[in-house]
Amino acid sequence: MPSPTIGNLTIDSRRLWDMLMDTAKIGGTPKGGIKRLTLTDEDRQIRDWFKTECEALGCTIHIDTVGNMTAIRPGKDASLKPIAMGSHLDTQPTGGKFDGCLGVIGGLEVLKTLHQAGYETNHPIALVNWTDEEGSRFSPAMVGSGVYAGTFTQAHADAIKDRDGVTLGEALDAIGYRGKVAPGSLEFAAYFELHIEQGPILEEEKLPIGVVKGVQGMRWFNVSITCRESHAGTTPMPYRRDALAAFAEAAVALRQIALDHAPYGLATIGIVEAKPASINIIPGQIDFTLDLRHPDASQLQTMKVKALTVIEKAAERHHGTAVVSEFWDSPPVVFDAGCVAAVKAAADKLGLPTRDMVSGAGHDAAYTARVCPTAMIFVPCKDGLSHNEEESSTQDECANGTQVLLEALIAYDAR
Amino acid sequence: MPSPTIGNLTIDSRRLWDMLMDTAKIGGTPKGGIKRLTLTDEDRQIRDWFKTECEALGCTIHIDTVGNMTAIRPGKDASLKPIAMGSHLDTQPTGGKFDGCLGVIGGLEVLKTLHQAGYETNHPIALVNWTDEEGSRFSPAMVGSGVYAGTFTQAHADAIKDRDGVTLGEALDAIGYRGKVAPGSLEFAAYFELHIEQGPILEEEKLPIGVVKGVQGMRWFNVSITCRESHAGTTPMPYRRDALAAFAEAAVALRQIALDHAPYGLATIGIVEAKPASINIIPGQIDFTLDLRHPDASQLQTMKVKALTVIEKAAERHHGTAVVSEFWDSPPVVFDAGCVAAVKAAADKLGLPTRDMVSGAGHDAAYTARVCPTAMIFVPCKDGLSHNEEESSTQDECANGTQVLLEALIAYDAR
Repeated sequence: MPSPTIGNLTIDSRRLWDMLMDTAKIGGTPKGGIKRLTLTDEDRQIRDWFKTECEALGCTIHIDTVGNMTAIRPGKDASLKPIAMGSHLDTQPTGGKFDGCLGVIGGLEVLKTLHQAGYETNHPIALVNWTDEEGSRFSPAMVGSGVYAGTFTQAHADAIKDRDGVTLGEALDAIGYRGKVAPGSLEFAAYFELHIEQGPILEEEKLPIGVVKGVQGMRWFNVSITCRESHAGTTPMPYRRDALAAFAEAAVALRQIALDHAPYGLATIGIVEAKPASINIIPGQIDFTLDLRHPDASQLQTMKVKALTVIEKAAERHHGTAVVSEFWDSPPVVFDAGCVAAVKAAADKLGLPTRDMVSGAGHDAAYTARVCPTAMIFVPCKDGLSHNEEESSTQDECANGTQVLLEALIAYDAR
Repeated sequence: MPSPTIGNLTIDSRRLWDMLMDTAKIGGTPKGGIKRLTLTDEDRQIRDWFKTECEALGCTIHIDTVGNMTAIRPGKDASLKPIAMGSHLDTQPTGGKFDGCLGVIGGLEVLKTLHQAGYETNHPIALVNWTDEEGSRFSPAMVGSGVYAGTFTQAHADAIKDRDGVTLGEALDAIGYRGKVAPGSLEFAAYFELHIEQGPILEEEKLPIGVVKGVQGMRWFNVSITCRESHAGTTPMPYRRDALAAFAEAAVALRQIALDHAPYGLATIGIVEAKPASINIIPGQIDFTLDLRHPDASQLQTMKVKALTVIEKAAERHHGTAVVSEFWDSPPVVFDAGCVAAVKAAADKLGLPTRDMVSGAGHDAAYTARVCPTAMIFVPCKDGLSHNEEESSTQDECANGTQVLLEALIAYDAR
């Protein structure tokens, strides 16, 4: 199947795929995934490759003090801010070949296409490889774009330690990728990020392109329900103060809250622990986590209020008490209407069916959106699987997304 | 409050209480409980005390090859089998002062009362201190009475190891309490065991005596529900195969099964684990335990069948599968009608209100019931608390139970 085209600008599907597959060997795992933790020697190798490739296209590489790498291809008007593409080349410990890589390597394929055609844009074009998007070595996630957007300070980022006690700053120095550019000083006219969906919707609906209108809000809670531990054999049902019974009722009701906020509301209990955890003791305490998400801040707030009530009532029914502590609140991000429209128009022009989507996961684009017009393009991934060595998208899926990235960029540049 | 009396035979409430409190110092904990694990030096000390006390009353001590100690006070007719009392002097690692001790020391108080009064029974009277009732050092519980009843072999018991690799046989030899009597060779005409309830019913209903008609049946299961692990942020509710949602629905329904088998049905989930246990991953698997109890075997079987259906359906609703493995099946025990009637008549005669009960926990009496007529007497304990250093019964509660034990014994002997 040939790649979709725009006039005479057509990305090279095969070249894109070969780059994805070849670079996947840097940190490649036996199961076909990638282990390329941020600021390790594998990360250095892929950074070196990225630098060499971009410089071969006549780009200048700017490295900021948190290690974010930005390749800039000049445009006709040097006074205009660059239009940027980007994502990340670091991976999870058992990551796949597409999460992050597709956005950077797709962007590189766009640069190669422009270069080969001798196409001159009005704006300079930038391609960014953000530092530590995954957050699996240095937590939290999206540190590089977070510093770029002013959410974290340089000092905060430098001091983050990995499990061996190595700081992010030390690791950055060790691989020689601490640059001199002040993060955020390189401003963008717009930022487009191509990414695999990491969810099942596009695949289920057989759609090649997701037009991402924002990133959902997310609130995380630790919940503890305390009732009374007692003997499973000697405590009749009416005398029980069973924390697990309270938990089960709360869990059913919490799920219902998400269903009542369809189609976007999400509620997840990922961790649960019964105490004292003995087969013949009625749990006196249940600790669990709650992850609530919605793209609309007020709906998310409503979900939270409902959740607190549901948990409290469940505990009360079993003569217990509940303590809920919220330890993370990431508000929804709404992407720029102009950037979103450019993505939608690009896909329409190419005859690629789309659906509007809200990103369920965090991305560097969630931070760039704080400082410049931003949008994202999603492509399907098999079974919605990500953060997994079996993560998979097809050559056509990757090419479609990359062609849309190119089209959106050109259209935005021509405005 | 004076102790209840029978004719001129009245137990000495104060003496009983002092014995309970004094012996609680052997292995006594700072929080007022006892740590007297079976076959430790603390156990040896209490055994030595028990032997000395019984011998001082003219009893003969018989020790069998699994360490069960039986004190025998002669009766008028040596050809009659002894009528026995008993329980255990070992405790949990953070045990209380009454679980087990009350049955043995209450029995000793009965012997002292008979001795002091010069009362001659028809049958010999036996008092047993069973080895390793708690099972917390050498698992399972009730090993001594189990060997006595022929449920376990001597070789099996001898080979059980504690966490340090010491076998029960070695520990028995080390404290010098392996006797020569073949377990089970000393047959009883009847066996009465006084025990704290270890549950809340008597206290809640303000009743001093529980007439225990049997031990409920108990079936233990490991359950695993497998669905599909996926991302909490990118997986819309309708696409989820959430093992925790399946579990919560199953847990609510399992509780309902117990409620539908009121007043005796019990269902407990004591342990639950979500996998992979990450706040933003929908659990792909939930493992949990299920403890079902009922005094009637056919009702317990019905509960089990319902439980399997409920679990299977919950897994199916979330497009998952369930695997249930039953790993313990302890059938209900029905105590001897004659022994139960003797306990009931004794309490009635003393004007002590009673209720019929079924023991929720296992006791040595559950094993003796397999080989001789058996019944139990329960007394209240504070908040139903047991296997806990705060386990507590009052002097009067202990005295009431002990007087009922004496009465029942005398009545049974006079039949």
